[in-house]
Amino acid sequence: MAVYTQVSDEALTEFLSAYDLGAALSFKGIAEGVENSNYYLETERGRFFLTLFEKRVNAAELPYFIGLKQHLAAKGFPCPEPVMGRDGTALRTLEGRPAVIVTFLEGLSPKRPNVRQCRGLGEGLARMHLALEDFAMTRANSLGPDSWPPLWAGRTDAANALQPGLSDTVEAAFVQILQAKRSFEELPSGTIHADLFPDNAFFLGDAFCGAFDFYFACTGALAYDLAVCLNSWAFDEGNATDASRLEYNFSKGAALIAGYQSVRPLTPSERDALPALCLGSAMRFFLTRLADWSSTPAGALVRPKNPLEYAARLAFHLRMKGAEGYGA
Amino acid sequence: MAVYTQVSDEALTEFLSAYDLGAALSFKGIAEGVENSNYYLETERGRFFLTLFEKRVNAAELPYFIGLKQHLAAKGFPCPEPVMGRDGTALRTLEGRPAVIVTFLEGLSPKRPNVRQCRGLGEGLARMHLALEDFAMTRANSLGPDSWPPLWAGRTDAANALQPGLSDTVEAAFVQILQAKRSFEELPSGTIHADLFPDNAFFLGDAFCGAFDFYFACTGALAYDLAVCLNSWAFDEGNATDASRLEYNFSKGAALIAGYQSVRPLTPSERDALPALCLGSAMRFFLTRLADWSSTPAGALVRPKNPLEYAARLAFHLRMKGAEGYGA
Repeated sequence: MAVYTQVSDEALTEFLSAYDLGAALSFKGIAEGVENSNYYLETERGRFFLTLFEKRVNAAELPYFIGLKQHLAAKGFPCPEPVMGRDGTALRTLEGRPAVIVTFLEGLSPKRPNVRQCRGLGEGLARMHLALEDFAMTRANSLGPDSWPPLWAGRTDAANALQPGLSDTVEAAFVQILQAKRSFEELPSGTIHADLFPDNAFFLGDAFCGAFDFYFACTGALAYDLAVCLNSWAFDEGNATDASRLEYNFSKGAALIAGYQSVRPLTPSERDALPALCLGSAMRFFLTRLADWSSTPAGALVRPKNPLEYAARLAFHLRMKGAEGYGA
Repeated sequence: MAVYTQVSDEALTEFLSAYDLGAALSFKGIAEGVENSNYYLETERGRFFLTLFEKRVNAAELPYFIGLKQHLAAKGFPCPEPVMGRDGTALRTLEGRPAVIVTFLEGLSPKRPNVRQCRGLGEGLARMHLALEDFAMTRANSLGPDSWPPLWAGRTDAANALQPGLSDTVEAAFVQILQAKRSFEELPSGTIHADLFPDNAFFLGDAFCGAFDFYFACTGALAYDLAVCLNSWAFDEGNATDASRLEYNFSKGAALIAGYQSVRPLTPSERDALPALCLGSAMRFFLTRLADWSSTPAGALVRPKNPLEYAARLAFHLRMKGAEGYGA
């Protein structure tokens, strides 16, 4: 939860004067988002969200993320749509930070997604991939496979301190990923969300009604996005004390894959690559969490997520032999 | 900023089933409120706020706070109105916490109130006092004068560590407060907010449009409420490094008092008591901040407010001889 940058009355009024949105009627910090400051903003023209991008975001990449959301919205895919000022630009500056207003999106993020929601998410993910087929901008995945060995370097002891022998699991996973890496590069590629966790998706009841937080979006293997979702939607939620007991929920995973394939069927090569892609995506989140875990002082404002939840997924994927084990 | 209690999808759905509000369309943690968890809640019937009361709140007192807001709303005073369930009760349980839904109130809390807003606040405070004249419930002020000596006991060193010689100021203030205390008890009494800081009031432009966060409301001297507001609205905002340079803004203070008197003129005894009431109210916030400051570990989730901002007010009020110094 986060509001890092306070916005003064005068700064907000001046900022809004660049838009045709009328005056502010309500403005409240939202306890969401680890990277940015987010505000609920109501004006005479409706409800919006205002995001201020904090230091961890590379300002040069913001036009990509804004263009992506504009493209999705134009295609009718439900996502927060950047709102243009009267000068036709969506990205401007507020309290010294890059800032953007986006449309309000209705929906709730499921805390424990059910099987029907997993199916809906799979359909939504595939619809998003199709909607982005003709999106012209590209962005390298800064957290792709090449970033993993440097993230792991020097963290063997940190991993084993979390769970004795964990470094063996990580090393074994690296061997499998290295073997599969070349085939990854030949998979159908496009624009992927790369972080479509349950807290980045909206549902009304069981109906998928939107995706947001596109700040890890990039160009990459479409099936990698599916693997990220299998990891984040189809494992039954763990907790800090018992993260090692996380288990793959076959019904949820199979529903997610079936939902995806009902819109965009996987190619044979994507299907074959699924276990390695799941392993790779588990590695990505394990390593960034391990790095955050090691570098965050005790009692910090934002509590880091437990890397062990992803260590459990690594161990699971290491044992998997084929896509059928995931319900594909 | 705070969301202490997470609400599961199932718990929210079950909770809402007790109301005629339809299904949830949006549910977001709000980065406001130090004591409680607050959520923006949108349902098929409109926008609301949901508050979960955390451990620092005495559940036995909640009916008082809810009754107070119901009374104010019935009188047409703008505040969040508790929403009744189908069973006619507003207070129920969610995730093991007492919880209440209140109506959405439009407005923005001024970060640096201007003179016109101070006048509007004074008018609003007096309207609130009049609207509560026939409110039958009572609550003792748990942070009234009798609570101050125990809060101060044992904190001399902590005060002097913040600012050399500060304990002399506090002791001198205690002498003056003790002299005035009996006359406090003879002032016109009623239901007071007791914490109407700028972040607990809403404005649209310069127009006062509501008060909220009534969780310190109690029965007490009406003019004490005015003194709390003079302390929190009419001193130009300081910061942690330079809290001792805070100064009374006479234009703001005079406007606040004039606004109040335009609705409810002060009695001669209230006017005479104003310097001592300002000193007492500054003492109350100085002492609670000092206690929070001493007891909060470095790097805690909620950063305590700097007691020195109120030490500066104590020193100012000690020098004041009469109400005319405040613009009354």
